[in-house]
Amino acid sequence: MISPHKPDHRRRVGVERSQKTRAHILESAVGVFALKGAHAPVIDDFVRAAGISRGTFYNYFDTTHALLHATIEWLEDDVFGSMEPEAAAIPDVALRLATATRMYLRWAAAHRRWCAFVTHVPQIGTLARRRLLRDLRDGQKSGVFRFPHVQAAHDLAAGIVAQAVQRMAATPRAAARTDEVVHVMLQGLGVNPAELQRVMAASIPVSARPAKSASLFKTGSND
Amino acid sequence: MISPHKPDHRRRVGVERSQKTRAHILESAVGVFALKGAHAPVIDDFVRAAGISRGTFYNYFDTTHALLHATIEWLEDDVFGSMEPEAAAIPDVALRLATATRMYLRWAAAHRRWCAFVTHVPQIGTLARRRLLRDLRDGQKSGVFRFPHVQAAHDLAAGIVAQAVQRMAATPRAAARTDEVVHVMLQGLGVNPAELQRVMAASIPVSARPAKSASLFKTGSND
Repeated sequence: MISPHKPDHRRRVGVERSQKTRAHILESAVGVFALKGAHAPVIDDFVRAAGISRGTFYNYFDTTHALLHATIEWLEDDVFGSMEPEAAAIPDVALRLATATRMYLRWAAAHRRWCAFVTHVPQIGTLARRRLLRDLRDGQKSGVFRFPHVQAAHDLAAGIVAQAVQRMAATPRAAARTDEVVHVMLQGLGVNPAELQRVMAASIPVSARPAKSASLFKTGSND
Repeated sequence: MISPHKPDHRRRVGVERSQKTRAHILESAVGVFALKGAHAPVIDDFVRAAGISRGTFYNYFDTTHALLHATIEWLEDDVFGSMEPEAAAIPDVALRLATATRMYLRWAAAHRRWCAFVTHVPQIGTLARRRLLRDLRDGQKSGVFRFPHVQAAHDLAAGIVAQAVQRMAATPRAAARTDEVVHVMLQGLGVNPAELQRVMAASIPVSARPAKSASLFKTGSND
């Protein structure tokens, strides 16, 4: 006789094992993309890095492009998701944008391999950049930000963060200067000096859910 | 009897032909790098694009890396060199940096293929970024720029230009907003409002020596 519980149990074990393999492929893929860039790697690079067969790879991903997409999605969810709730809870838009950027740049400074990864895979952060556009419009409406066009303000905020991350990747032992970067960013957005001093003096919230992928990028801080 | 003039003439013709072939390889390489990025192309891509033999290619360049390096050097010299003398002649540092950045972004807006190329080959512009650092230090010393650290100011100026160029590449039909970008850049560098208005009102010099490579990147302006 067939027990009614056994198939459920087996299925659950199967699903768990499958999730574990998928996570393992994604984790190994981070190293490959960091080394070779977003578009150069071939399937054998990922198969070798994960220590799996090509057949197993194809059970999870059809193409290297699909794997890149899944890796980006996982990291955005993991890394930005680990900071998002704390920053999003701040109602004041200048303080919210300042705090979110300070949190992110400090995390990047403490995980220099992340900086190298993002330099090679600039598609990372699209989600964060979309949220940025909303914050810029809110801040312009409320008068705390003053700039001639939201597109130029977006170029400034997205550009300075990307450039700081690239610099941290290129000079991993140099001081990260993260708060100085956020200072000139706010100055560029037209935040007045008193307001700027106030938001930069605020303490930075501690993330309630640290990024699971952090260990992949950890190389020490020089902030 | 051997005429004493003939070998010289032959040598000169040979050198001219050789320079012409080299220029042709460089020009064709621009299209290959723009399409495939800085590191993905193989020698056959360049051989096919230039319509030459592999043997001819190797007469000029040992590796694709050497070709990349030569292409970058040629374009930096040609594109930045076509604007440099006019901007460098301006003694006032805020006006000089504003004018150089306005000239460059307008040129980029009128040559959207250049924007796509630079997005794929971000090594372009290293020379310009080094000059930038010198301008930032000069401006900080004279008090016209106010920022907490020159590295953060550099992240801002280099980052906003790179981001604006990427945006122009991604949305080739949208307005380029180049002067708005320079406005928020100067604001971020701490230029006071009166000074900012003054430098943005200045007329832009016309380049005495237009870039030879311009036709490779021309796709029309939307500024």
